[in-house]
Amino acid sequence: MKRTAEELAAFVGGELKGNGKTIIESVASLTNARPSDLSYAEEKFHGDVKTSVAGCVIVKSGEFPERTIIVANNPKLAFARAAIWLLTEEKDDVGIHPSAVVAPDAFIGDRVKIGPGTVIDAAARVGDGTVIEAGCYVGRKSVIGSKCVLYPRVVLYGGVEIGNRVIIHAGAVIGADGFGFVKDGEAYVKFPQVGRVIIEDDVEIGANTCIDRGSLETTIIRRGVKLDNLIQIGHNVQVGQHTVIAAQAGISGSSTLGAHCVIGGQVGIGEHAHLDDNTVIGGQGGVLNGKHVRGGEVLWGTPVRPLREFLKQQAYLARAARK
Amino acid sequence: MKRTAEELAAFVGGELKGNGKTIIESVASLTNARPSDLSYAEEKFHGDVKTSVAGCVIVKSGEFPERTIIVANNPKLAFARAAIWLLTEEKDDVGIHPSAVVAPDAFIGDRVKIGPGTVIDAAARVGDGTVIEAGCYVGRKSVIGSKCVLYPRVVLYGGVEIGNRVIIHAGAVIGADGFGFVKDGEAYVKFPQVGRVIIEDDVEIGANTCIDRGSLETTIIRRGVKLDNLIQIGHNVQVGQHTVIAAQAGISGSSTLGAHCVIGGQVGIGEHAHLDDNTVIGGQGGVLNGKHVRGGEVLWGTPVRPLREFLKQQAYLARAARK
Amino acid sequence: MKRTAEELAAFVGGELKGNGKTIIESVASLTNARPSDLSYAEEKFHGDVKTSVAGCVIVKSGEFPERTIIVANNPKLAFARAAIWLLTEEKDDVGIHPSAVVAPDAFIGDRVKIGPGTVIDAAARVGDGTVIEAGCYVGRKSVIGSKCVLYPRVVLYGGVEIGNRVIIHAGAVIGADGFGFVKDGEAYVKFPQVGRVIIEDDVEIGANTCIDRGSLETTIIRRGVKLDNLIQIGHNVQVGQHTVIAAQAGISGSSTLGAHCVIGGQVGIGEHAHLDDNTVIGGQGGVLNGKHVRGGEVLWGTPVRPLREFLKQQAYLARAARK
Repeated sequence: MKRTAEELAAFVGGELKGNGKTIIESVASLTNARPSDLSYAEEKFHGDVKTSVAGCVIVKSGEFPERTIIVANNPKLAFARAAIWLLTEEKDDVGIHPSAVVAPDAFIGDRVKIGPGTVIDAAARVGDGTVIEAGCYVGRKSVIGSKCVLYPRVVLYGGVEIGNRVIIHAGAVIGADGFGFVKDGEAYVKFPQVGRVIIEDDVEIGANTCIDRGSLETTIIRRGVKLDNLIQIGHNVQVGQHTVIAAQAGISGSSTLGAHCVIGGQVGIGEHAHLDDNTVIGGQGGVLNGKHVRGGEVLWGTPVRPLREFLKQQAYLARAARK
Repeated sequence: MKRTAEELAAFVGGELKGNGKTIIESVASLTNARPSDLSYAEEKFHGDVKTSVAGCVIVKSGEFPERTIIVANNPKLAFARAAIWLLTEEKDDVGIHPSAVVAPDAFIGDRVKIGPGTVIDAAARVGDGTVIEAGCYVGRKSVIGSKCVLYPRVVLYGGVEIGNRVIIHAGAVIGADGFGFVKDGEAYVKFPQVGRVIIEDDVEIGANTCIDRGSLETTIIRRGVKLDNLIQIGHNVQVGQHTVIAAQAGISGSSTLGAHCVIGGQVGIGEHAHLDDNTVIGGQGGVLNGKHVRGGEVLWGTPVRPLREFLKQQAYLARAARK
Repeated sequence: MKRTAEELAAFVGGELKGNGKTIIESVASLTNARPSDLSYAEEKFHGDVKTSVAGCVIVKSGEFPERTIIVANNPKLAFARAAIWLLTEEKDDVGIHPSAVVAPDAFIGDRVKIGPGTVIDAAARVGDGTVIEAGCYVGRKSVIGSKCVLYPRVVLYGGVEIGNRVIIHAGAVIGADGFGFVKDGEAYVKFPQVGRVIIEDDVEIGANTCIDRGSLETTIIRRGVKLDNLIQIGHNVQVGQHTVIAAQAGISGSSTLGAHCVIGGQVGIGEHAHLDDNTVIGGQGGVLNGKHVRGGEVLWGTPVRPLREFLKQQAYLARAARK
């Protein structure tokens, strides 16, 4: 979508300096930008603004008399918001592909795209403006809200509930059975995995990430949570709103994470653990089963401890072992 | 399927107290249960039995004069077994979906379901009563036993052998090439990955888990093994019967695990390692290449050591670094 | 493909001893081999050469008067090269399956196989001799070189560039959005993920591995890189040529790995880290954000340190805690 620099300044609530009629079509970094691109610069990169040929640059301060700039308080945020606005395309491919298989009693909203080979099973519901790309599977009685995007090969088992504006990347699996068994002599008998999964609004779920359904309870991913790729979320887990989890982390069954947590890559959280709001765990950290982790501190190591302690311990060990 | 409390008591070998004619249709936790649900309680939750409206509750002991209960020695196990019995539905959708692609020389047993878009390649065999959901791929000469369930988007490469009553969750990949290369100057030449994969009876495989085929030998998952999501099983690995492996664990090539092991989440096991029967490794533990791990003890850390030692070392380090 | 022992000796540049007319059809280990198989032996397994019924064995030295052998300097390498030559089949199933969905303006080269249900989106290009198995998705304007193999259910998002002779295993996802957000009050706004992905020639990518597209820059996997299963490669990452990464490792955004590195399983590398050429990191090692890791040494632990130091520290801790 084409926008003028003027329109972009108004959209992000910034102050325009330079040629407001400049036409902007896309976004790029300062070094890759062409004259039709919007870019942005943190203050340490102001030197690059002068050499960039970007059509418009969002900055926080400074004078760039030969450039068209937008002055905004948080250039990166303004740029991200402008990018979403610029890059939202009018969908030209709404409709159900003839090779898709949609159950007669499924409900499909308005302006929905259902890609080739996608299967929408009995009594499932897809909200207005949602895009479901090729080869997805939406199980019986699953419900997807409006303006969601499911990239190719996403699998929703039956009975999964997805809110609005949720983005699910390729290969993610939502609602598979949790991992629960009861010992019966030397073998294991499957414990019923018949609970629900609720994914609230504005969640993003990475490629090949797995979110299991509850066993008898409900797995809940609250509003605004962002999950990276290849993450494991066990049965009955609850993740609080606006918590961010990096790639390959794993949350074991029945653990609860508060709101606004930041969980590093490859972190492992045991069963029945609880993390307070605002907990931060560094990459590869490990939380023991049943542990209650207090928030507001950066934690590290297995088992997790405050980062300061972890560093002191590492330093001590390095010194002591060298003697 | 509807059952009476009486029938359920007989099925699990428990003693009925209360109204044996109560009709039960499903299962739930004590707090979520409706009058048509079966539930169960460990002894510490006996208080909840009195307030639950579950139609029938399995307990180990105690008097609940106003409730319909089944007394069984292991309530959780009885509940799990009853749940499987109750929730097994008569399949109403047996048959090959018209959009599936089944090779003319593939063999499909009786009462099989082949979902939309699934591909059954040349000379593959699917046993009686097996369900293969949408979008699966079963490679040439692969053999699947009877009463298996393959959830959507499972991939079996060619020549994979799956036993009976095996459950494979969405996105799992069985039989991909192992990771083996030979250095040739600065580049790598692929070592042949042409071995077999055998998955024995009653195995369950989690979503997006990968089990590689043998290079020249055979990768074997023995009877009753339970694998969680996002697990990596390398080429030539053998996993002994009734071993349980939690999510995101990885077993490197040519390692062997004994029977009845319990492997925690994100555990990493190096190449050519061997774990005795009954080995237990805590989450994120690491086993070095070639290591022989003795069983019967709980191991922790990287490299793994007995849990008592791990805890003493952690405690020592915390004290010493604080000085 | 059938070859004589003589032909194989010539192909690998080795010296034939014994019956050069022996017909070889496949490869196997010494113990599994049949008379039509080629095998190989390291010197410590020379005893097995005498008892094997392999039709031909590649060895480095020794006299095996009753066997047909090929003497080569590096038997394992010669065997791997011979195996590729022997096992390359004339494809009998070239062509576009009628259930595939190929955009009218996609370009499909000569002798290409497009499997059932595969989707080739608008303006994508597939080079000569490439095989795309069932259920893959190739996004808009993605380009795949010649003689590649995409196993079932591979997803390429739009605009991904794949070189020649690239092998991508089932379930891999290339070009999904990187994990980048900007905080906006308590919520997160998505940072644009509109960069490119370039996979150079002779790369192999494991099952269910994820390689994210650049945010504003480009994610690059250089020539000859080998990636195992379930690996995460973040946005803007660059992996140098002939680097090998084992299963479940994760490389966070904007990190760069040099050439000829060897990265163990479950290794985690933070953001904006840099590894020199020839860096070796043992399984489960962790590299901190922004760290520059010097090459040429074997590193271990979290955070990584030279293996010798790691072992000394572990030994010290074990001793000290025991007191």
